[in-house]
Amino acid sequence: METLIDVARRGTLPSAIRSVARREHMSAEELRRLIATGKAVVPYNRANRLTRPCAIGKGLRVKINANLGTSPEQIDLKAEICKLKTAVAFGADAVMDLSTGGDLRHIRQALRKICPVPLGTVPVYEAAVASARRSGSWEGMTREDILDVLRDQALSGVDFFTIHSGVTRRTLAVLARQPRALGIVSRGGALLANWMRRNKKENPFFEYFDDILDIARQFDVTLSLGDGLRPGSVLDATDRAQIAELKVLGVLARRAWRRGVQVMIEGPGHVPLHQVARNIRLEKKYCHGAPFYVLGPLVTDSAIGYDHIAAAIGATVAAANGADFLCFVTPAEHVRLPDADDVKLGVIASRIAAHSADLARGMPQAWKRDRAMSAARKARDWDIQAQLAFDPEKIRAERKRSQPHIHDVCTMCGEFCSIKLQEKKKRA
Amino acid sequence: METLIDVARRGTLPSAIRSVARREHMSAEELRRLIATGKAVVPYNRANRLTRPCAIGKGLRVKINANLGTSPEQIDLKAEICKLKTAVAFGADAVMDLSTGGDLRHIRQALRKICPVPLGTVPVYEAAVASARRSGSWEGMTREDILDVLRDQALSGVDFFTIHSGVTRRTLAVLARQPRALGIVSRGGALLANWMRRNKKENPFFEYFDDILDIARQFDVTLSLGDGLRPGSVLDATDRAQIAELKVLGVLARRAWRRGVQVMIEGPGHVPLHQVARNIRLEKKYCHGAPFYVLGPLVTDSAIGYDHIAAAIGATVAAANGADFLCFVTPAEHVRLPDADDVKLGVIASRIAAHSADLARGMPQAWKRDRAMSAARKARDWDIQAQLAFDPEKIRAERKRSQPHIHDVCTMCGEFCSIKLQEKKKRA
Repeated sequence: METLIDVARRGTLPSAIRSVARREHMSAEELRRLIATGKAVVPYNRANRLTRPCAIGKGLRVKINANLGTSPEQIDLKAEICKLKTAVAFGADAVMDLSTGGDLRHIRQALRKICPVPLGTVPVYEAAVASARRSGSWEGMTREDILDVLRDQALSGVDFFTIHSGVTRRTLAVLARQPRALGIVSRGGALLANWMRRNKKENPFFEYFDDILDIARQFDVTLSLGDGLRPGSVLDATDRAQIAELKVLGVLARRAWRRGVQVMIEGPGHVPLHQVARNIRLEKKYCHGAPFYVLGPLVTDSAIGYDHIAAAIGATVAAANGADFLCFVTPAEHVRLPDADDVKLGVIASRIAAHSADLARGMPQAWKRDRAMSAARKARDWDIQAQLAFDPEKIRAERKRSQPHIHDVCTMCGEFCSIKLQEKKKRA
Repeated sequence: METLIDVARRGTLPSAIRSVARREHMSAEELRRLIATGKAVVPYNRANRLTRPCAIGKGLRVKINANLGTSPEQIDLKAEICKLKTAVAFGADAVMDLSTGGDLRHIRQALRKICPVPLGTVPVYEAAVASARRSGSWEGMTREDILDVLRDQALSGVDFFTIHSGVTRRTLAVLARQPRALGIVSRGGALLANWMRRNKKENPFFEYFDDILDIARQFDVTLSLGDGLRPGSVLDATDRAQIAELKVLGVLARRAWRRGVQVMIEGPGHVPLHQVARNIRLEKKYCHGAPFYVLGPLVTDSAIGYDHIAAAIGATVAAANGADFLCFVTPAEHVRLPDADDVKLGVIASRIAAHSADLARGMPQAWKRDRAMSAARKARDWDIQAQLAFDPEKIRAERKRSQPHIHDVCTMCGEFCSIKLQEKKKRA
């Protein structure tokens, strides 16, 4: 069966994808060309009928992803469903189920059923847990464990897989030759590095990449090539191991395209501000323009408790420089599994970053929104300001809690409202 | 009497200022040169004995300011005292009392008494309110009203004045010739523009700038030349009116230096990300390297309710490009007068911005902090991580609320902690 890339290369996009182009204020032909050349992806498993599919890549509105999922420490499907609904309500363009605790298959299927946006996973988690159940140790994980999980996940409608294929013997050797503040901070990356050491074998996600491509092709699952060696400290940013892995991902991206499989590249992580733009340039160069999916980046290691802010700073600069897809970071990062409130704050911070980058990139829809907000501010219309806000209920509640005596100003300035003063001026 | 600039030009800094240099890990000679040439300021009224003075400018750690103060709508001295204590506790390097409601003199003196850091004001507020009490209308404000307030504030120990001297007949004419989404959004700027129109006179803060310099010189008050025409919408950023005013401020800065008065320049406001670096370059050029004190800038108009995040994004990029002093923005911005919780969040967001910019600027102390945080993370020591956090109590409380079964990981990853996995690897 043809994949979306095949179709895009051959001719006309299916109607579901044409409507994605419309929502982007882009012609279907332009989106077709971007998909055909790998510059954009539309993660969309052929088993699904997503109500809110989205395109990610060059010239498109910057998209955001929210990570959900249980951990061995906290297993609560209801809580995960609540997080998913919160993420989507506040504007996540995609979500990932990163569950590592409980019945992973059941959780994933439950989330898939109610998820209107593209759903991603990191299949190595389920493969490791399945192996542990079967053989008592996740380090016994086999090629078959992995391919079975991939097939099952693809069949059940997962739209994109994070695959840590860049953690190879060679890139681990690069890592071993240099000092790092924090080594490997990717869960998938650390699992695979351990597995490789224990089994004295190459990374199965690298070795059996063609098998993975077969499955991805069959269900038209988009691959998100994970950065298992991403820096987890600003001290490790843009180091040799990170770049060595990035080059491997670039080679694999080409193999995916040859098989008609959509692909994006994952990026850091922790990166000081002055290195962020360079990280984007390197990805676009070594990965031939594949969409870049960044986690933050956090511009400091010190913002624990407020990492959504550190990530929003890095994400805005990354996206303004060409990153396409922002993985949110919540205030719970580095401390605990996030709850629904954390998810809300993470999504909002990411949306501020994505929108601010869209402004910097000159996206007309973003400017339209800010124009409307400024008009509402000029009119001192707090109802419209709330409507246009990323969190309307918060604005309404706070306005109610702090109601001024003069109805058309706020309690910050009262009668000294600069905007109102100018109207008086005109009347005078 | 000699001012700090006079002393710096002549020879050796006083001991209080030498200790400021030590805290900056800078030689006293280097700081002396920066102060003498106007590249740095130490706001420090000679009537005071600040316990925490600070230097602001080139090559120094980026500093942050927290705005406090009543409004005609909310007058509560206790609340303002609480906000001041919160701001200082969370690391504000300076605070401004922007009160416009109640007994301004009493409030200011009460805040001055307990404020360990430099205190700034916007004297036009008190002059306008005094005039309104005297004559029934703040538009009757006279030269004497203004100079009396300046003298009284200087005498009582205000360390820096925001003076909107750049709102002149000429710059207002530039503003009138162009369309703006939001006109004047500076409270002081709007008051003065109205006053000028009503009285058909030049801005007294421009016309009597020499009198203001006399007072500033007498008490060694630092002038912060306000941007009354700053953009209040990204649509208005970097426009002719803003730049025309900036050039006026550059001329006035030279006049201040000639009189031995320290001076900094205030900047926007609302600026889309791609224009932020340019704004810094323009200020450094037109204002001859005077320290730049920015309000945000907010990189979007749409983040109402979360403007501390929009401001942190712009502030980090501004400071990484040479802005020296960041005025915080709280989540209450555009909605209501902030309370102590808002002040806390505003200060923390600003500190993240300032610290992240210090990393980007290569400040060794900032890198030391992130190195220590990464080491604590590697050791999975949450006590030290909390100690190093901008909000230690938050980390301790959340860690307590979400305690894992395995003591040295967190509930995000549990046994799949990537850092712990690597230790197991080494033991294996």
